[in-house]
Amino acid sequence: MKLYDFGRAPNPRRVRIYLAEKGIDIPTIDVNLREGEQLSAEFLAINPGAMVPVLEIDDGDYLSECIAICKYLEALHPEPSLFGEDATGEARVLMWNNIVENEGMFAVAEVLRNSLPAFENRALPGPLGLAQIPALVERGRARCDNFFDRIEKRLSDSPYLAGDAFSLADITLLVVVDAAANMVDIDAAASRPALAGWHQQVSNRPSAQA
Amino acid sequence: MKLYDFGRAPNPRRVRIYLAEKGIDIPTIDVNLREGEQLSAEFLAINPGAMVPVLEIDDGDYLSECIAICKYLEALHPEPSLFGEDATGEARVLMWNNIVENEGMFAVAEVLRNSLPAFENRALPGPLGLAQIPALVERGRARCDNFFDRIEKRLSDSPYLAGDAFSLADITLLVVVDAAANMVDIDAAASRPALAGWHQQVSNRPSAQA
Repeated sequence: MKLYDFGRAPNPRRVRIYLAEKGIDIPTIDVNLREGEQLSAEFLAINPGAMVPVLEIDDGDYLSECIAICKYLEALHPEPSLFGEDATGEARVLMWNNIVENEGMFAVAEVLRNSLPAFENRALPGPLGLAQIPALVERGRARCDNFFDRIEKRLSDSPYLAGDAFSLADITLLVVVDAAANMVDIDAAASRPALAGWHQQVSNRPSAQA
Repeated sequence: MKLYDFGRAPNPRRVRIYLAEKGIDIPTIDVNLREGEQLSAEFLAINPGAMVPVLEIDDGDYLSECIAICKYLEALHPEPSLFGEDATGEARVLMWNNIVENEGMFAVAEVLRNSLPAFENRALPGPLGLAQIPALVERGRARCDNFFDRIEKRLSDSPYLAGDAFSLADITLLVVVDAAANMVDIDAAASRPALAGWHQQVSNRPSAQA
């Protein structure tokens, strides 16, 4: 197996943290998003979505999408479980992972990609070259606020997103919280004590260095 | 179990088709999105994301997100499999389902919600009441074109999205193709013969009536 990766991008970090939690070592190939390598004909043949991470599996096929990559690796390395312990547990992991991806990750990306000059004509990932829309910066910030408020309520009732155990959903949230702070200057943990406590705890896991 | 549903919305149809494929019968409760029932205090306590579908499970908890609802039901009703037959198969189902949701469903919604007067201040689902942004209509159409072109390539190589068998990913694509045609007048199958053949075939399944 090989992992197509890029150190500074949020989504590949989700898989790197997952691998660190499992103690799995996979060779990586860097796709330099800053230099547009994801738009090369060579990489578009690997992922027409022009995004990393991508996992090349041993039959030569390619898997994109963090949820697919991690679920595939979970089948090969089931312990410790990061997808819940039973049917209800797995459903809660998938539910929270999807909520964090759609409401959190996409909101942070909306702020980032519509404001930074580096993302001019890259307002969404993918091959399209879409122009920035300034109104989306404000909208993205409102979405982030609403999302992190929802997370604060959840983490006031539950130690981890999907219940009593750390899971893939927490990995996705950690990456979103850190991207918000480091890339668009949104401090999600400020004035949200449950989120702040959770963030300190998961940041202390060795995998958070990935 | 109970399913919170709304007949005219695309996402609940994903679960209804899934249930029809499995032959599962679950009582439904209609949440009238036209009249804003998803924003009532009562429904926000069920899903703070203000979206249907939601599955109330027998421990009294609520599952949102189609992927979580269907995976939960898959554990209870594994045959016929709609999540692939092995680790690679499941990864491909999750991958394509996510691609169709993020690149297809969200693009159709971007056109719909930013153009129709009925979605004024409802430019995204959820509790925020976001204003429409006219530039997103054109962007959404470009995203739809790019998405359906990608699907055409995939279905030229593979009978179904995730491989040789009909899966959850095909259900999501059917709902996106029909929503594009019926809600924003985008005929994805026109001039895309592989997609047209696939669409005819899956539309002939009895579950497509759901």
